[in-house]
Amino acid sequence: MTLRPAEEARASLEAAAPGTLSTAEPRHLEEPRGRWRAASGLLARPRSTAEVAALVRTCARERVGIVPLGGGTGLVGGQVAEGCLILSFERMTAIREISRTEDLLICEAGAILSDVQAAAEAEGRLFPLSLASKGSARIGGLLAANAGGVNVLRWGNMRDLAVGVEAVLPDGTVLGGPGRLRKDNAGYDIRHLLIGAEGTLGIVTAASLRLVPPPASVATAWIAVPSPEAALKLLGIARDRAGEGVSAFELISGVGLGFLAEHLPDLRQPLAPAPDWSVLIELGLPSAAEDALAGIYEAAAEAGLAGEAVLAASEAQRAALWDVRESIPLGNRAVGALASHDISVPLGMVPEMIAEGVRRLEGRGVRLNAFGHLGDGNLHYNLFPARGRARGDYDAEALTGIVHGLVRELGGSIAAEHGVGRLKAAELAATGDPGKLAAMRAVKAALDPAGIMNPGAVLPRRAEPPGRGRPA
Amino acid sequence: MTLRPAEEARASLEAAAPGTLSTAEPRHLEEPRGRWRAASGLLARPRSTAEVAALVRTCARERVGIVPLGGGTGLVGGQVAEGCLILSFERMTAIREISRTEDLLICEAGAILSDVQAAAEAEGRLFPLSLASKGSARIGGLLAANAGGVNVLRWGNMRDLAVGVEAVLPDGTVLGGPGRLRKDNAGYDIRHLLIGAEGTLGIVTAASLRLVPPPASVATAWIAVPSPEAALKLLGIARDRAGEGVSAFELISGVGLGFLAEHLPDLRQPLAPAPDWSVLIELGLPSAAEDALAGIYEAAAEAGLAGEAVLAASEAQRAALWDVRESIPLGNRAVGALASHDISVPLGMVPEMIAEGVRRLEGRGVRLNAFGHLGDGNLHYNLFPARGRARGDYDAEALTGIVHGLVRELGGSIAAEHGVGRLKAAELAATGDPGKLAAMRAVKAALDPAGIMNPGAVLPRRAEPPGRGRPA
Repeated sequence: MTLRPAEEARASLEAAAPGTLSTAEPRHLEEPRGRWRAASGLLARPRSTAEVAALVRTCARERVGIVPLGGGTGLVGGQVAEGCLILSFERMTAIREISRTEDLLICEAGAILSDVQAAAEAEGRLFPLSLASKGSARIGGLLAANAGGVNVLRWGNMRDLAVGVEAVLPDGTVLGGPGRLRKDNAGYDIRHLLIGAEGTLGIVTAASLRLVPPPASVATAWIAVPSPEAALKLLGIARDRAGEGVSAFELISGVGLGFLAEHLPDLRQPLAPAPDWSVLIELGLPSAAEDALAGIYEAAAEAGLAGEAVLAASEAQRAALWDVRESIPLGNRAVGALASHDISVPLGMVPEMIAEGVRRLEGRGVRLNAFGHLGDGNLHYNLFPARGRARGDYDAEALTGIVHGLVRELGGSIAAEHGVGRLKAAELAATGDPGKLAAMRAVKAALDPAGIMNPGAVLPRRAEPPGRGRPA
Repeated sequence: MTLRPAEEARASLEAAAPGTLSTAEPRHLEEPRGRWRAASGLLARPRSTAEVAALVRTCARERVGIVPLGGGTGLVGGQVAEGCLILSFERMTAIREISRTEDLLICEAGAILSDVQAAAEAEGRLFPLSLASKGSARIGGLLAANAGGVNVLRWGNMRDLAVGVEAVLPDGTVLGGPGRLRKDNAGYDIRHLLIGAEGTLGIVTAASLRLVPPPASVATAWIAVPSPEAALKLLGIARDRAGEGVSAFELISGVGLGFLAEHLPDLRQPLAPAPDWSVLIELGLPSAAEDALAGIYEAAAEAGLAGEAVLAASEAQRAALWDVRESIPLGNRAVGALASHDISVPLGMVPEMIAEGVRRLEGRGVRLNAFGHLGDGNLHYNLFPARGRARGDYDAEALTGIVHGLVRELGGSIAAEHGVGRLKAAELAATGDPGKLAAMRAVKAALDPAGIMNPGAVLPRRAEPPGRGRPA
């Protein structure tokens, strides 16, 4: 079914939710990597779930596509489409409730991650999901993308932290409360269908989020390791000794540290010279985390798995180590990636993913910066031109073909934590599990028969049947 | 659409998967509470996912209903239906792989929970889901029901422990591998749609399960508390001091302990006389769990939240405490419940659920045994006749109406961890969130248009359109 441009339905949308419409500004029309940009757009900024529902109902009736917009930090183009109503949550930022008894925070979809974290902290609790864009990413977008970040190893993805969601379905029906139950087996888990669906099956308007008691004792270290394989073994030692107290375990490539040294020379790096490989490890325990971390380091060093290390001796040093980790994307941006890949493989395959990838890319004249959430088997596997060579010298698509081909051979995912969006929709359709794709298409057609919800994201737009024009 | 009796398709089923069919034995036709019993049935015991797929494909073509059967321990009648093909997983029990590096165990759907636990233990790891029927419950059934149990507080439901599933969809398509990725955002989470759907959207044939490092130090105590409210406050103290190290927190009613004293007099109870309310708490920490538990107890006692207590001093004592907890259902069965309810409410509402329930049931001459997973807001809220009165004297439906009515007022669930099955399908359809029900029906119709998958479970069978007979 062909969709109509949102502008054509402006009058009915204004009648449905008066005072919510305006013309989109440039910030509503683009995304961080600059690959997608809409020329113009009609913006809706609803103030309540009821207004969201009224707008969605109208779009369903008028056959207008909807792109939900959170903080706009997504990296796969899920937030940009031409001709759709851009439904921004910037006015729905309330934190409705925090319960320490229930370890629960209920907020609207537009709440910014760092505000949620701060609200939890004020109650002596931790909202454990964290990522570099926390100052602008909004809860609704994080849920739509099932965001990950640096603490997934311990506390899970956004999906695992959402006790319940309130959402508007493609026909305008409001779903849920959001619920606050830890156990509820009354029917299908529609919540998990909406989370990670990138706004293509409905729009999350509020959520109940799980809080956790903050570990009383935290220790953080930056440790040089001889190889990714050694890093994986070090993780095993850490898990054996500290159990689930290992809350982050990030692999850092010397290539990325080199980019930082070149482009952010004022950023103080923990080890000099920058090791080819290092890990950033954090423990959170009820007590004596530093002792536990020292013990892990000694055992690893004895086994030849660890070289030089810096153990943070203060909260400021801890923050400084994380600052280096979180600056890596800035270094990447300064150099300019040829092709970025957000991949996961079974944990045990991570060393092979790096070693075999390097072999297959040999002779292509690229630099690989593979870094990220080793504990989750999730790497950002980004390729850069050799020094002195220009991006135009390379066939980026062929490079992605090599990387994604290897990922598939190893049983991995080409969309680990950033989602599919528009960037990977065609590739997913071409190479995904056919059974899963068929189920996805059936679910999409059942819940959104007119295809108004974030059209073209996750699943490519269906081809129009020939001879069918736009309805008058 | 009308379904045909499985027996009519026997020849095609035999051709599709030779050597898998037989006549069902009584154990395949009944369920533990004796409310549902099929008169007869055609049994299939496939040996592989390919055979499951062949059988399902044939059932789809022949319009034969399928009831998947695990250990048969379900409590809501999800495993019993007349005229369907009973698809038992008793021949698909292989544990395909255990990876300590990946903290992962891959097994077929017929693997028995206690075998999975033992296999994990042999590798120095813990599969943390546990419940009283672990010696017969099978992984496929546990996934279908999204089973809970005593460690959900810390490690989550079955859903949270399933990294990936392999499944056969209603048209016979095989989905997945099962995957072993901790992070995978490549499309909709069909896994979570199948888990908890009680076999109505597809049949799980294998799963990758998350293992955890076993806590090095475990401490368990049985503590008398003055009230459910005090128990909740005690939980708060425990979480403040031991963080997520609180791995179980069970509320025990003196009524249930009285049943045990009467009907299992040889079972040694931890405290005498049995307190009106007590909790069974377990901590699992990297070290010094007993000290931590002693500290929690002292703080609680000082605040008037704890009375007498027994701290397990050995593994045998720990097992003995758990044995008392897990015997409570035996005591209940010996007395004979009028009405059992598997409910959850927001954690903070648990004391009100008990106090207000007692008020509303006053004058009905019933005894309430409310016990279970306080840490999850999940209670088994079971009603028994007063001493000397017969079950026939009571209107069980009216009693359930009172209990479930209160649950709904408090924003709770009438199907917390046992599922909906056939027992609660009509009530869910009548009282559930209309938006969620509409989405459920749309998903069911999309994935299982002929309605062959566990017909009548979760969603009631659709009424036949008038004038439409069985296809010739």
